Amino acid sequence: MHQLTLSDVLADHARSHPQSTAAVDGAVRLSYPELDLRVNRLANAMTARGIGRGDRVVWLGQNSFRVLELLLAASRIGAICCPVNWRQSADELRFVLEDLTPSLVVYEDGVTPGDGWIESGDAYEAFLGAPDPVEGPGDDGLPVLALYTAAFDGRPNAALLSSAALVAHASSLLHVRRMEPEFVFLNNGPLFHVGTMMFTLATLLVGGTNVFIPAFDAIEVCRVVDAEKVTQAFLFGQMIDAVAAANASGKYDLKSLHFVSHSPEWDAMTTVDDSPWCRTKMGGYGQTEVGGMLTFLGLAAGGAGFAGRPSPLVQARLLDAELREVPPGEVGEICARGKSLFSGYFNRPELNAYKSRGGWHHTGDLGRREPDGTLTFIGPSLRMIKSGNENIYPAEVERALKTHPAVADAAVIGVPDERWHQAVRAIVALRPDSTATPAELIDHVRDQLASYKKPRDVVVVESIPKKGFTPDYDALDSAHGGGNYPGQS
Amino acid sequence: MHQLTLSDVLADHARSHPQSTAAVDGAVRLSYPELDLRVNRLANAMTARGIGRGDRVVWLGQNSFRVLELLLAASRIGAICCPVNWRQSADELRFVLEDLTPSLVVYEDGVTPGDGWIESGDAYEAFLGAPDPVEGPGDDGLPVLALYTAAFDGRPNAALLSSAALVAHASSLLHVRRMEPEFVFLNNGPLFHVGTMMFTLATLLVGGTNVFIPAFDAIEVCRVVDAEKVTQAFLFGQMIDAVAAANASGKYDLKSLHFVSHSPEWDAMTTVDDSPWCRTKMGGYGQTEVGGMLTFLGLAAGGAGFAGRPSPLVQARLLDAELREVPPGEVGEICARGKSLFSGYFNRPELNAYKSRGGWHHTGDLGRREPDGTLTFIGPSLRMIKSGNENIYPAEVERALKTHPAVADAAVIGVPDERWHQAVRAIVALRPDSTATPAELIDHVRDQLASYKKPRDVVVVESIPKKGFTPDYDALDSAHGGGNYPGQS
Repeated sequence: MHQLTLSDVLADHARSHPQSTAAVDGAVRLSYPELDLRVNRLANAMTARGIGRGDRVVWLGQNSFRVLELLLAASRIGAICCPVNWRQSADELRFVLEDLTPSLVVYEDGVTPGDGWIESGDAYEAFLGAPDPVEGPGDDGLPVLALYTAAFDGRPNAALLSSAALVAHASSLLHVRRMEPEFVFLNNGPLFHVGTMMFTLATLLVGGTNVFIPAFDAIEVCRVVDAEKVTQAFLFGQMIDAVAAANASGKYDLKSLHFVSHSPEWDAMTTVDDSPWCRTKMGGYGQTEVGGMLTFLGLAAGGAGFAGRPSPLVQARLLDAELREVPPGEVGEICARGKSLFSGYFNRPELNAYKSRGGWHHTGDLGRREPDGTLTFIGPSLRMIKSGNENIYPAEVERALKTHPAVADAAVIGVPDERWHQAVRAIVALRPDSTATPAELIDHVRDQLASYKKPRDVVVVESIPKKGFTPDYDALDSAHGGGNYPGQS
Repeated sequence: MHQLTLSDVLADHARSHPQSTAAVDGAVRLSYPELDLRVNRLANAMTARGIGRGDRVVWLGQNSFRVLELLLAASRIGAICCPVNWRQSADELRFVLEDLTPSLVVYEDGVTPGDGWIESGDAYEAFLGAPDPVEGPGDDGLPVLALYTAAFDGRPNAALLSSAALVAHASSLLHVRRMEPEFVFLNNGPLFHVGTMMFTLATLLVGGTNVFIPAFDAIEVCRVVDAEKVTQAFLFGQMIDAVAAANASGKYDLKSLHFVSHSPEWDAMTTVDDSPWCRTKMGGYGQTEVGGMLTFLGLAAGGAGFAGRPSPLVQARLLDAELREVPPGEVGEICARGKSLFSGYFNRPELNAYKSRGGWHHTGDLGRREPDGTLTFIGPSLRMIKSGNENIYPAEVERALKTHPAVADAAVIGVPDERWHQAVRAIVALRPDSTATPAELIDHVRDQLASYKKPRDVVVVESIPKKGFTPDYDALDSAHGGGNYPGQS
């Protein structure tokens, strides 16, 4: 029987929520029936262009209600929508377009268009086709959204998410975040990122209102929150401070925002939320490949692990390199399967086979199950050291080192060892005016972890070289004698 | 990849909720790891008996934690668990057993067992097998629960529900009912009925606690609510009054119960809930075949239709006899498809084909979409009258008649008519000391419905004969000249 796709969710909301606003974007304001009609027109236009099942449709621009339209129209004809990062370099964009070979690109002003590309605006409106209803394929396992992520070898991969995965993830957000049909979400974070998109789709699923602004702007956030009575926006840390500062005069009414407590100024102008999600701080562990969040802090009030508990719609296991489950208290790779999981990366059969070995998606991240069943996220599993037949993850040792008061930063490498295959070497940067002897730091690690994980020696440096947010292990290996890693010949 | 079955939900809770109580039943108290272990032992025992994929396992008894064990063990080996009605007659039970041909029957004291049946208690405990983990089939589309319902022709049919459907329905309950991991559900309603079972499974999904008592007993409800700090029980109307009366002395603390307001006595001893579900009264429309509830009042606060809005995980349509969607305001058959729908009736291929004609499950019930998108449930579509090529559902006309102040009860039949094929005849019982002329009643209907639906004539009787809760249409046809129904030769 016909399953439930994103397109079907929209078709039903057009009937069940005929008077609700589906999308707001500047002067554009669409009810669910109006959005449904426009999605039929877009789907018919795509079909007329020969676009069909499995074909890729790209959005290249800032946030817009048209991203939602493209995604829903793609669902309606079995195609795949990819909102790409408009901030990336020309070279990066070229890679993405060559990788995806899209059948349609809708772009915003400021980009040099390719052949057949359609500019968002008048050209897009003219492109829309006949309003005839499109039933669409009922296969909810078809991929419908592609999001680039996971640049394992320097180039990103497009994670494919099906309607089944997106609806399952959205339904877990409805529960944990207590979203009701009156929910109004401000899309101010990038729609090419799952962190924003997961809320967009949960808002769609519950029949709420998605409000779009091109990108974060503190004044614009204030204005739109006030005008549209926004419930939730994609705001963190300094963005919240910027919005609070922009509204210092109290010009805008932000009381419709239900937010976790942040600062006295912010708390005074918004509604501090006591839902389970906000009661214990937003949080959890996730990645694009699991549809957004794998675990929710909101499901583990008072739990020991700061990543919370898995969504009840997924299974999570901490596995070692031999695919054996590690016991509570031990570090393993966070692996998952279940309803919200992605369908693999577009056009990467070998990588997909590797990432799903043993029937579990390997996140590439390390975690630990606490005795109360909650999860602690340790860090990315970038390297593994093999010493005396034991697996040692640098991230776990680094975490232990950084709890020493004298340590500002730390990285751990494996150096070749005749007897043990590798030995653990710690590279440490100390805080100004602090001291710590190697023996002291080694003892500090041994107090926290199994003895075989402690560094054999410690090198003190001025600072740890970085690649993004993580240590530059290649540079550290070159500088400090690393090598003999498992899998290296 | 392996999908999410009920068995998998349990396996993960054993890890994520190791310290939570999964089930309480008298002196029995099982944590999630303990339940998981017993389910492995039961699954291994079933496998050793040759029970496997698609085989039926029957529970014949009152409520017990063993119903949950049987269901989860069935899921773990791909079998189907059917808790049957222990209140039914010997003849009815014989029909069910001949229909299901179960491979295993677990029964409680007081029943005459068949060959190979296992008595719940010591024999059941002795039956349990080795504790070795059972991975189980990863196909969440396999039916796992069978519930008898839908006695269209006098004999009931077993609705088959898959893990996918049950998990989807449970996840919508978690959202609408705001269920959290601390949820404690008292299983005092019958587990052979979806109304209880849907809460049992939602409680399982969120990692909460299922408390079992054999059947409703006001004092026992009080005692267990107090002892286990029960959040929700399966209590309505007179049952609530009985519990409130049983606790008139205030001996038991029932404050853990989160309930909708009912009476001053009840409200004073429980916690009146302001969640969306309770805020607007419990309600909605459902049946076993949709996994429980198709629509929720909690998703339509203030809506016009008293059945609320569909769960976002299903699609609902109001269709006419030709499978065309009827417009808002018109009555049609409530049809559905989506994530929580059943997999058909066991061993009824022809009925299944008929009930799923056009790709939509036909509920056999009539409804109306209100202009605000909410749903009104009209009544069962037991008969259809065909007059002048128009379809007329008796339930709709009866509903209109009953809004007249003089009408105590009403039924509508079709009488043969040479020109129109059938004509509408109303059979009406008036309230004591009330009068109404046929013309007055016919006008009353015409004021509310399309003119072709109004009765041509009205017969006044003392009382309407009933079959259960609905008019006995066969008796009415015999007594008042009904006939020529569409499909009748």
